[in-house]
Order: sequence, then C-alpha cells, then structure tokens
Amino acid sequence: MSILVLTSFNEKQLEVLKAAAGGNLNIKSYETATKLDFEQAHIIVGNPSAENLKYCKNLLLLQLESAGADQYCKDGVLPQGTILCNSRGAYGLSISEYMIGMLLQIYRRFPDYWEDQKNGAFGRDHGKVCSIYGARVLILGLGDIGSEFARRVKAFGGYTIGVRRSSLSCPEYLDEIHLAEDLEELLPDADVVSLSLPATKETYHILNRERIALLKKEAVVLNVGRGSAIDTEALADALERGKLFGAGLDVTDPEPLPKSHRLLQLSNVFITPHISGGHHLEETVNRIAKIAAYNIRGLRMGKERLLNMVNQNRGY
Amino acid sequence: MSILVLTSFNEKQLEVLKAAAGGNLNIKSYETATKLDFEQAHIIVGNPSAENLKYCKNLLLLQLESAGADQYCKDGVLPQGTILCNSRGAYGLSISEYMIGMLLQIYRRFPDYWEDQKNGAFGRDHGKVCSIYGARVLILGLGDIGSEFARRVKAFGGYTIGVRRSSLSCPEYLDEIHLAEDLEELLPDADVVSLSLPATKETYHILNRERIALLKKEAVVLNVGRGSAIDTEALADALERGKLFGAGLDVTDPEPLPKSHRLLQLSNVFITPHISGGHHLEETVNRIAKIAAYNIRGLRMGKERLLNMVNQNRGY
Repeated sequence: MSILVLTSFNEKQLEVLKAAAGGNLNIKSYETATKLDFEQAHIIVGNPSAENLKYCKNLLLLQLESAGADQYCKDGVLPQGTILCNSRGAYGLSISEYMIGMLLQIYRRFPDYWEDQKNGAFGRDHGKVCSIYGARVLILGLGDIGSEFARRVKAFGGYTIGVRRSSLSCPEYLDEIHLAEDLEELLPDADVVSLSLPATKETYHILNRERIALLKKEAVVLNVGRGSAIDTEALADALERGKLFGAGLDVTDPEPLPKSHRLLQLSNVFITPHISGGHHLEETVNRIAKIAAYNIRGLRMGKERLLNMVNQNRGY
Repeated sequence: MSILVLTSFNEKQLEVLKAAAGGNLNIKSYETATKLDFEQAHIIVGNPSAENLKYCKNLLLLQLESAGADQYCKDGVLPQGTILCNSRGAYGLSISEYMIGMLLQIYRRFPDYWEDQKNGAFGRDHGKVCSIYGARVLILGLGDIGSEFARRVKAFGGYTIGVRRSSLSCPEYLDEIHLAEDLEELLPDADVVSLSLPATKETYHILNRERIALLKKEAVVLNVGRGSAIDTEALADALERGKLFGAGLDVTDPEPLPKSHRLLQLSNVFITPHISGGHHLEETVNRIAKIAAYNIRGLRMGKERLLNMVNQNRGY
C-alpha cells in the first residue's frame, strides 16, 4: 500500500505513522511530490491541491491534516469513492487556548499597555477591565474547539451557553444548552459570542447584520472557525460605531483580509491571519499523527469505521 | 463607632458595609478626608498615608484595601495596638486571570501580530508557538493569587509545581510541592516561573543572578507580587542575551520603572504598571467590601479573630 505523507512531521511523529503503516512511507513535501507520487498513492496524509488530486488513480483514503474539509467536499475535487477523514480533535487544544488569550487580550486592554511600553508612554493606567469570571459566554460550534474553549471558560468562572442544531443534551462543560432556532433570544444577554463553526450553508452569515444589532455594547465577538459565519461589513460597522466592546478574529471573509481593510484599523479589534490552529503548536501535529496512524492501521485492517470520517454531502 | 471609608465603593458595595456597620459610615475620598476624620476614626477602610495615620488617636482597626501590607508594618507607621487586616482573597481572581493572559500573550506572540495589524504588515505568520498544555509551571507564592493561577494552569493541562517555606502538604491544584530550599533543583526544568510573593526579607531577590542563570532558554518569568523578588538587572541581562523566552511583569524594582529603562525596549518582555489587580475589576472591589464588612461586624461584636489579620512582625 502506497502511503504519501505530505504533512511535515518530526521524527517522533513519523515513527508513529510508520508503526501503523507496517512499513515505509512515501514522505514528500507539498513542493516535492510528483505526479507519479499522486498516481500511486492509496493513502494521502495532508491537504493536497485539487489539481494534484486529479492525478490520483488509486486513492482510498485522504486523511486531511486540517479540521475543515469543505474544500474537499465540492463536486469533482475528490476521486469518487475515496474516504475523506479530517483531523478534528487535533486543533481544540491550540485554538481554545488562543481564544482565551485573545479574549483576555481584549478584556485586559493589553494592546494599549503594549503600545505605551513601545512608545515611551509607559505608566499610564487604562482603567476598568472586564473578566471572564461571571461572563455569559455563548458558544456556537460545540465540536472539539468549542468544547475545549467551554472547559477553559468554566475554569475562569464564566457561564457557558451552548447552541446546537438539534439535540438538547447538555455536556458537563456547559451551563445551558439551546437550539439554534432560539439564537436571537440568547444574543442580547451574551457577554461573549464565540464562533467555531465549519463553513456550511447553515452557518453562512449566522451572525448577520440583524443579529449583530441584537448584541449589547459590552459584547465581544470571537471567530476561529470560518470567516463566512459573520457578515464582515456589518461587524465592522458595529465595531466602528462603538456598538460592541471588541472582536478577536482569526478568520475573516474575505480571507486573507486586504491590508487596507478598515477592520485592521480599529483599536478594539484584534485580527490574526488564520494562525490559531495550523501547526504552530507541536502537540497539534502530535495529534494529527495519532489520528492518521489510527486510520492507516484501520484501513489496512479493513475496518469500516475510521476516525473523523467526513460526510461529504454535509461538508464536515 | 466612627468608620472612615476611603476606598471608592459603588452604591451596592456601600450597602454591604452599612449593613455590617449597623449605621452610618463616614465616606470620604483620599483627597477629602480631614485631620478630624482621622482623629475620630475607630476603623479605617482603605490605604491611608503614613502621614495621615499619625493623626489617628482612636484607631482600633485598619482594614487595607490592598493585599500587600508591608508599608504598614514598618516601625511607627501604625498606632500601637491597632489591628491590621489586608484584603487578601480579593485579588486572586483578577491577578490570576491577568497572569494567564500575560503568559498566552507571550506564548502566542500576540504583540507581533498586533504590530503587523497596526503597521500595515498584516498577514505575516510568526511561526511556532508554545502552550500551557504540558508546561511545567513553578509557582512561588501559594496565597490566593498563586493558588488561583495554579487552578487555571491545570485547566489548560499545565503541570503545577508549588514551592513553600515549610509545609509539604499538597493542595489539589498542585501536581508537586517542594520546599523553598530545593528551589535551585527545580529552576532548570521550569517552563514558567511565576512569582506572587509578598515583599519580605526572605523573598528579596529570590530570583537572583545565579538562579536566573539556572533557567532554560525556553523559560518565561512572570511577576505580579513585588518587584523586589527579582534582581531586575540580572533579568534584563538574561532577556537581552536571549537566555530566556520572555517575561511578563506587572511589578518591577524600581517601581515605577523609568520610561527609559532598557527592559521596556525588549521585544520579549511585556510590562504593565502594576495594574493586574487594583480596582480595575468590579468583582475585586466586591470582594474587598465583603472582607471589610466581615471585619467591621467582627470588631463590633468583639470577636478576637478577624479575617486576614496581618502579622506585623512578619509583614504579611
């Protein structure tokens, strides 16, 4: 079985994969993988381009290194019959930690203090701050990221409110659970609205102009899922007019955000270029290696159910 | 009984105090309190100057709004026989949250991203980051602040190591407890060294030049207690020479730090002007009001033990 590994793993992580593969791996980078590598591959670990996927003739499993799979669910991208698995579960740690950091950065006015330090104005007191303690945190997207975020919020004494599409079962890390259809009743009371949603038809502009208008002036919006979940211009309008406390965005629509975009100029917005997850943290890549190893072993053993199988109609 | 309230409380907090006082309070600000106010006061809530304390003729209890009490333990500052209580327990929430925010700010390279956003360089990826997950966090000072910090570190999957002067009893928020005499064995393995210590003879330069030299290159130093716990110039040398990952300091020695101090120029150091606690968070002041109310009621009822009594010889 030919296993093409495109993700950049360290030695220790490759050992985990080799043990699962029961032999050699075809280790390439995105730049060095050839047409032949793709033609021969039965399994690919990584996120190849749609163009390179066209060469694949034997592909049984595409094990993505990402949690998001929407691009691979579009018609004609993936060879018919290929199993698609994502790396859901690998990113919750890194991204939830980032979310807390981002929220505290906004709540504690760190950019103001940082600028004072750098601009010779050290010593100024920027006054009152907010706390996660007692904050009502609305969590849209209760996958790995949302649930890990909720756990951390609770450790700070925050109040966690989850929103789901269908089920009302309430996991231990939530204080309340509600149906998505009740979202508009929840928005006016939220201190924080956090989005860790996949890009689907249902999540497109889930925070639209009308819903953003329901938020209170002290609210903070966090988005680490997909930029398309928010109407960017409506959010920029609200932030510009002081109708929100602030926003922390690791994803945007459009992405990348043009360098001249007005959002980048606002002092109550902190934006990063989709770096909260990625492979910035070694532990994230450790977890991707473990998921890939489990699925390589599972495919070789003829298991029907692999980890993190993507429903290609649903897109996640 | 004349109760002089100098701390700035809101209406709700004053109601808590009035209920405990069983009558009226003499509510003044630090600026408006007169010599007569001090002369008459049996109880003062707040942190009056040593000069004003000289006017006190009837003072039974000084209920500080601060956790630190060292200035009031110096000879001759407090009228003989006055009970001194601090507001230990009020600041752990605010300061521990600040510490996590500061650590994540350093670990996730937020200042670099912030500067890119503000300087038209948005979109750059600043590479690998560190995580609290799996980090060995050494905690010096296990009072309210240190213990609350430890609880939050554990919620992120960090490994908490406490250091105490005498007892080896290990509270549930610590993975390990050690004696202060073993500090030098612990420093080389620490990913984070956090200091939330009072200013005493024992804590003066507890991180001296020799001990800073024992830290690994990936270590982060956090200080929210008193600046005197660290040899400032030795820390600056280590940071300047890349011998540490970074530092987050809310207290410094000297304090305030001169605007021209080299520490302020280093990119791996984040310094704030002693604002992690203070009254920046409403909940902090709520807690001060509760402590003060308990002690006012206690004194009126003739209780021998009040909350947070300071040992004036020990200084905390």
